[in-house]
Amino acid sequence: MPKIRIGLIGYGGIGRVHAAAYRAIPFHYGLPADSIEIAGVATTRRQTAERAAEEIGCDFFTDDYRDLLRRPGIDAVDICTPNNTHHEIVLAAAEAGAHIYCEKPLAMNVAEAASMARVVQAAGLKAQVTFNFRFFPAVTRAKQLVDAGFLGRIFSFRGRYHRSSYIDGDKPMSWRLQREITGGGALFDLGSHILDLLYYVLGEFDSVNGTLETLIKERPTTKGSAELAPVAVDDIALLHARTADGALGTVEISRMGTGATNDLSFEIFGQQGAIRFDLGEPAWLSVYDARAAEGPQGGERGFRKIEAVSRYAGQRAPDWTMSPDFMRAHAECQYQFIRAIWDGSLPAPSFADGAHVQKVMAAAERSSELGAWARLDDI
Amino acid sequence: MPKIRIGLIGYGGIGRVHAAAYRAIPFHYGLPADSIEIAGVATTRRQTAERAAEEIGCDFFTDDYRDLLRRPGIDAVDICTPNNTHHEIVLAAAEAGAHIYCEKPLAMNVAEAASMARVVQAAGLKAQVTFNFRFFPAVTRAKQLVDAGFLGRIFSFRGRYHRSSYIDGDKPMSWRLQREITGGGALFDLGSHILDLLYYVLGEFDSVNGTLETLIKERPTTKGSAELAPVAVDDIALLHARTADGALGTVEISRMGTGATNDLSFEIFGQQGAIRFDLGEPAWLSVYDARAAEGPQGGERGFRKIEAVSRYAGQRAPDWTMSPDFMRAHAECQYQFIRAIWDGSLPAPSFADGAHVQKVMAAAERSSELGAWARLDDI
Amino acid sequence: MPKIRIGLIGYGGIGRVHAAAYRAIPFHYGLPADSIEIAGVATTRRQTAERAAEEIGCDFFTDDYRDLLRRPGIDAVDICTPNNTHHEIVLAAAEAGAHIYCEKPLAMNVAEAASMARVVQAAGLKAQVTFNFRFFPAVTRAKQLVDAGFLGRIFSFRGRYHRSSYIDGDKPMSWRLQREITGGGALFDLGSHILDLLYYVLGEFDSVNGTLETLIKERPTTKGSAELAPVAVDDIALLHARTADGALGTVEISRMGTGATNDLSFEIFGQQGAIRFDLGEPAWLSVYDARAAEGPQGGERGFRKIEAVSRYAGQRAPDWTMSPDFMRAHAECQYQFIRAIWDGSLPAPSFADGAHVQKVMAAAERSSELGAWARLDDI
Amino acid sequence: MPKIRIGLIGYGGIGRVHAAAYRAIPFHYGLPADSIEIAGVATTRRQTAERAAEEIGCDFFTDDYRDLLRRPGIDAVDICTPNNTHHEIVLAAAEAGAHIYCEKPLAMNVAEAASMARVVQAAGLKAQVTFNFRFFPAVTRAKQLVDAGFLGRIFSFRGRYHRSSYIDGDKPMSWRLQREITGGGALFDLGSHILDLLYYVLGEFDSVNGTLETLIKERPTTKGSAELAPVAVDDIALLHARTADGALGTVEISRMGTGATNDLSFEIFGQQGAIRFDLGEPAWLSVYDARAAEGPQGGERGFRKIEAVSRYAGQRAPDWTMSPDFMRAHAECQYQFIRAIWDGSLPAPSFADGAHVQKVMAAAERSSELGAWARLDDI
Repeated sequence: MPKIRIGLIGYGGIGRVHAAAYRAIPFHYGLPADSIEIAGVATTRRQTAERAAEEIGCDFFTDDYRDLLRRPGIDAVDICTPNNTHHEIVLAAAEAGAHIYCEKPLAMNVAEAASMARVVQAAGLKAQVTFNFRFFPAVTRAKQLVDAGFLGRIFSFRGRYHRSSYIDGDKPMSWRLQREITGGGALFDLGSHILDLLYYVLGEFDSVNGTLETLIKERPTTKGSAELAPVAVDDIALLHARTADGALGTVEISRMGTGATNDLSFEIFGQQGAIRFDLGEPAWLSVYDARAAEGPQGGERGFRKIEAVSRYAGQRAPDWTMSPDFMRAHAECQYQFIRAIWDGSLPAPSFADGAHVQKVMAAAERSSELGAWARLDDI
Repeated sequence: MPKIRIGLIGYGGIGRVHAAAYRAIPFHYGLPADSIEIAGVATTRRQTAERAAEEIGCDFFTDDYRDLLRRPGIDAVDICTPNNTHHEIVLAAAEAGAHIYCEKPLAMNVAEAASMARVVQAAGLKAQVTFNFRFFPAVTRAKQLVDAGFLGRIFSFRGRYHRSSYIDGDKPMSWRLQREITGGGALFDLGSHILDLLYYVLGEFDSVNGTLETLIKERPTTKGSAELAPVAVDDIALLHARTADGALGTVEISRMGTGATNDLSFEIFGQQGAIRFDLGEPAWLSVYDARAAEGPQGGERGFRKIEAVSRYAGQRAPDWTMSPDFMRAHAECQYQFIRAIWDGSLPAPSFADGAHVQKVMAAAERSSELGAWARLDDI
Repeated sequence: MPKIRIGLIGYGGIGRVHAAAYRAIPFHYGLPADSIEIAGVATTRRQTAERAAEEIGCDFFTDDYRDLLRRPGIDAVDICTPNNTHHEIVLAAAEAGAHIYCEKPLAMNVAEAASMARVVQAAGLKAQVTFNFRFFPAVTRAKQLVDAGFLGRIFSFRGRYHRSSYIDGDKPMSWRLQREITGGGALFDLGSHILDLLYYVLGEFDSVNGTLETLIKERPTTKGSAELAPVAVDDIALLHARTADGALGTVEISRMGTGATNDLSFEIFGQQGAIRFDLGEPAWLSVYDARAAEGPQGGERGFRKIEAVSRYAGQRAPDWTMSPDFMRAHAECQYQFIRAIWDGSLPAPSFADGAHVQKVMAAAERSSELGAWARLDDI
Repeated sequence: MPKIRIGLIGYGGIGRVHAAAYRAIPFHYGLPADSIEIAGVATTRRQTAERAAEEIGCDFFTDDYRDLLRRPGIDAVDICTPNNTHHEIVLAAAEAGAHIYCEKPLAMNVAEAASMARVVQAAGLKAQVTFNFRFFPAVTRAKQLVDAGFLGRIFSFRGRYHRSSYIDGDKPMSWRLQREITGGGALFDLGSHILDLLYYVLGEFDSVNGTLETLIKERPTTKGSAELAPVAVDDIALLHARTADGALGTVEISRMGTGATNDLSFEIFGQQGAIRFDLGEPAWLSVYDARAAEGPQGGERGFRKIEAVSRYAGQRAPDWTMSPDFMRAHAECQYQFIRAIWDGSLPAPSFADGAHVQKVMAAAERSSELGAWARLDDI
């Protein structure tokens, strides 16, 4: 397998996570240490770029990602910059012939996402979105079970992603609250993750009835300031949704989920069984088999909390007896991308997947404005 | 305190529970055994009535509830009959001057419920609805905390009542699936309970956006029959709702909640705290205080699972170290009714409460038809 | 079935629970209201006896249990008095020809217990001990599974009964802390329950290695008093134990289990499976099947939380969708006793069972004194 | 800070984990990528050593650890070899002047452990044992709370480490079951971890009463073989123990804990509070405050599940909203060692700590032979 040389664009918190995850992959899969190399890093501030390069151990850094794209031998870029830059960078990277790994949500809107998916496909490049939550073992197991028909006809579902990061009204404005940077609020930031998980497990969405709301409508411009600025994005988004296969469900997305640290969960109810996933125990999937025996004196029905996988496929490092953490799921997601480059397989989650999620979010916004259901086909 | 003589109308499963609960009250509160007497029982089938009287230990039974109302010395009636008979019986009982304890949902529709609330008020009678879930200790504690302002501004909420009683498509039609008997499906049967709990804790609802669906649209007319009959009521009802105080929330109601035995829960998210109730542990309330200290090395924030009450007010029997069961909550609900008769206090949950819940259910149905929000004021 | 007339001896908290439970039985099983009658009550204080009779609704009360035994038509007695009176009352009741239902622990010591078991057997009377925890559905289910060989060879086990009732050093002396009344401390009060459950599910004990300790060695003689009295009973008892079948386990018993309301649990580890019971969810048994498939990408192994029984055998009242409470388990235990009188079957838990538990407790005390294992055969 | 050059000795599963963890440290703490370098690797088989070097990305490998010690510029060694080699390697490394990071249990017996602790102290070297579980945030938080006196007088405790790795009687002999390689069985392998955690939080042990047992006494010599070999080490170890501060507790250690994947937990009961740790949720500590208000209508007492730390001190990578995994805890443990080298602080857990745990294990073995308590001072 040829060495993969990656250009890392953006080095905020999540950029650092990606960098660490690339370094961990060889140990998890018994690969040569130099099989994946971060060959350069670009951030908008030169100083940050320099520090990043030192931390990563690479000798190239720049404050202009175009410099990085121009470097010879860059096989792929990893985009960890704000949402409003994804489209531009993806187009430039595609033109430079680099495979692309891009943070979520894919884009600012449906048009951008569609354009990005088109461009990478036309260029024959591998392109993957960081829907890292797919790579917790219990999510993978949930998908296996649904694909195998374990649940029978799927009646309904529920998803949630709650954080409590904005309950404090004194917390000032930030880039996460600015629509021109992010494209949306809780729906985009948190919702993209849970909507992708449901899409991954249940298939495409058909229509959505959403209610989005900005619970705290003004915030200090800076910490402690008396000046208030309007918050233009949702901090809660409640959705009813139907899948193309006819399941009806509900999705709760909130940055005002008081008490939640990182409360992501889903449940799926089928005629022959049910499953429950909770990010709090990401290697354990609760599974109910409605075909189990039931008797007057006590049967066998109940949720079984299965250790969802004993390890990731091919894993070498013996850390499978505990749940993997945030970093490990990123490493797995990135490994899928690297493998797709190596073996020519289709990367997943793809930009087309990212574009579908973008459509669901757009439908949720439109339905909230209309106060009525919106179909994805009409977006 | 004078002895209360009760006429019990209906003796299906829930009638038996009410009867047992009346018998338990003296032991729970140190009252004379004969302070509450079931003085007669009426069911539509004479044979059932006779067996009921034997089980209860009363000497009067009848297949016509009017006979029971005509008996001298009946202080109150307890109505455990199907929903479509509540209105008629309540009006007759009010005319007979009996206090009234009536199973939920109060009525078939808003008009009936309003009429019933009016009639009992005009007659100066005590009238209570069996919203027995209010009387689990953790629910009472949740109300205390919300009333005391513990949560601060309430942002949002979530409620659920799931059972899995109808996931089997071979299960035949039953009275629970006939709109002319019940007035509605899962929304009426299960939804009335969870909607009442949210109303009890959060105050009146303002508007609702519901999606009701009949997931299995035809069922065998009888067990094993090849003949199918259409199911005319919802088996799942998903609601978005706003309270008069501006909280936005979601409510899931389903008889197709695969894996659920009796899955009733709610969560409330406020600016200063959050609470979670789960019927699986009905004496324990999870409470989060957002004002607790948070520090870089670990603070004090987290959900505290409080033993919600050490016992019911005035309780004598030492059973407070375990969660009360279904029967105990009914006993408590009925005790409130009896006490209201004794001390002249207002009974709660009242018929007015039952009528409010009826309105929420009607708004949910209308919004589902319209595919848009419905305001309670417009019902 | 003839009416059973019961003489109730003792009416503290637990006496009231027994009385209420007898009244509930007809509703749970569709029996005539008068099939079980509390025909009289005896307590040492006449005033308490009078109030008890009023609450129960019986016309006989006395401050001398012998008066009650002399009443014609008493079929059975129910003994709810302190431990140091059990032996005397049982012997008197047996002489009077009454069947006997007796609170736990059976006796003050092994000699008493053996004598009581002998006497009732010789007299051909039904005699049962109030090991009410056996009658939570998940315990019954655990026994079924073990008896059916579901666990294969049993390797080991763990039991616990923790309460936190005595952590406060200012809590004064009480009868529960006086050896001459109770015979022992936490070991007798709480330990008798968990030891019986383990014995019920796993069979007889062979030997015990216990460490008993009085953590707070002196307490105020009365609330607020500066005068201190020595506490002569254990408040914590830690046991290692072997069953006759060769399983090795550990049992923790404490009244100083800070944070515990009523923390009773057990786990059993076998070669083919494992089970876990927790009193917090007494209708749910966690069951692990080691024979389930395990695969590299995720298998089927895990604890299944089964709804242990859908209802008690023969139960009529529809309260089986929630966990039964303390009262309901007592009702079930008492119903077994009544049924044994009616159908001539062997009552269980029997006095012989109570005597075995007494032996285990004695062995625990002896081993604690010796600092070494003690065999039951040597007690 | 000078670069630290590490010689890694042993590259089985745990060696790979250590290697990956060293690589992750710079990203977690914003350090230059080359601040920690694995400068060489030694394993007993040359081929393994070569593959390890490729995976790690270092240019030196050898099948003789002495070669590695002789390399110039090695600052420290990390010993990931079987227990029976620790003593020899530590002595050689100390002679070579290398700081030492050594896997647990420290040694084969108390004499070896004492000698190792003496040697590194005399040489003025940093020496740390891999008690990585100390570095889960909730453990750290537990220690903080106990040190701050939050629990008041400590009454009792309970610890457990269960795995189910040996329940299958057909599983053949392995090095883990050979006393001459490991020094002991479940007690050494798993017990060393939980005993260290209790020691870390509660302080030194005073005495132990243990029962060790080999539940499956013979196993096939190789997979599928009919030839059986005797198992010479314990697979279950039950301990009663007293700390020097007078707390009495129980510890359960088993490789036959059917259903357990990695079930490590402890509870501590104090007069003013209690805490519970469970490795299943290693960033959450359950904390009970007995001083919280209790009222007749419901108080505030209950276990609070606190997010134990928001992040590790100094941490940069934003992965603190989920629990850290096995790898992360190793990285943290190793970071403490590296920091001790940099800043001259005392490393912890030290070899003296490892030697104390060794003494507890020896006391457990002796007490099991004697069937009586053994004091650490007598070992």
